[in-house]
Amino acid sequence: MNVDVLLFRNFETLDAFGPVEILGSVPGFSVRCVSPNGGMVVSVQGVRVWTEPLGTGSEPEVLLVPGGMGTRALVGDPAYLAGLKDVAERSAHVLTVCTGSALLAATGLLDGLRATSNKRAFDWVVSVNPSVRWVSCARWVVDGKFYTSSGVSAGMDMALGFLEDRLGRAEAEAAARRIEYVRNADRDEDPFAR
Amino acid sequence: MNVDVLLFRNFETLDAFGPVEILGSVPGFSVRCVSPNGGMVVSVQGVRVWTEPLGTGSEPEVLLVPGGMGTRALVGDPAYLAGLKDVAERSAHVLTVCTGSALLAATGLLDGLRATSNKRAFDWVVSVNPSVRWVSCARWVVDGKFYTSSGVSAGMDMALGFLEDRLGRAEAEAAARRIEYVRNADRDEDPFAR
Repeated sequence: MNVDVLLFRNFETLDAFGPVEILGSVPGFSVRCVSPNGGMVVSVQGVRVWTEPLGTGSEPEVLLVPGGMGTRALVGDPAYLAGLKDVAERSAHVLTVCTGSALLAATGLLDGLRATSNKRAFDWVVSVNPSVRWVSCARWVVDGKFYTSSGVSAGMDMALGFLEDRLGRAEAEAAARRIEYVRNADRDEDPFAR
Repeated sequence: MNVDVLLFRNFETLDAFGPVEILGSVPGFSVRCVSPNGGMVVSVQGVRVWTEPLGTGSEPEVLLVPGGMGTRALVGDPAYLAGLKDVAERSAHVLTVCTGSALLAATGLLDGLRATSNKRAFDWVVSVNPSVRWVSCARWVVDGKFYTSSGVSAGMDMALGFLEDRLGRAEAEAAARRIEYVRNADRDEDPFAR
């Protein structure tokens, strides 16, 4: 299963690399970092990551969209959103972490669907597109092919939930044990909801 | 506080970027990725990260050493270990995640000190240097300037513990809340010990 991780300037480091750690260690999963034109992309925390150009190579079966301060500019960038909408439509599964759901919502693809996001940026996320059925208390939300998670570390729980839905509970538990991670396995239990 | 993250071929992605997420978001902390000669370094999960040459720029106050399959070759590389020993001696604090402690142990700097590591690679880690007082049940261990953590995600708890020791409990709790992380705050509580 090909996983494309869509990076942009000022993405949040763990939003991307928590799920990359989990999905990238499952036999049969292949993860790569992408951006519209490829090249080096720098995270909020200053990590410089090499990306392949979006649309090259195999079609992604999974698209992962992190959040971070970089989303604030991109939700107002029509060309970027058109590219994101195109790749998201072609992907079998789309996973967002933190304010990555605001970016996806700005494409219109989440209109009328249930989704969540970082609880500390929630008002801003809702303001980006109020036509989404935003869920204010959830570790992560699944609606059709879209998985959206709460802030930063919640992306790891969502990635494990995605694995569980695809491969079963035993595989998800094994993936959590491999990284010695105390999993939050209940998507509706949200310790950080207001 | 300058934090140098020492990367090498086949480092474990989250070992590095869990602590980077946490430490790199604290005001006054500055994180960069380094390797002996600089350049691109690829993780076990295929993430390509740009590194600065070790020894350039400001002296690191914190050295972070991840683990991963890449440590297996490096524990037998005298030139690499000499460089690691040198920078570790000059750093005020040295933090290792997972099998990063085996790499540090191979330099001799942990001889006679308490340390821990990934519980799934524990026998190998002990075999690298039995002169370390290896702790088989701990989320993370502190001995002097050395912080060593259990596998992968335990590095995040260790990073929060390090912050707590430097800046106090409130700052550590705030850092965990910022990333919506359900912290394992007790270093002696190890759900993955055998």
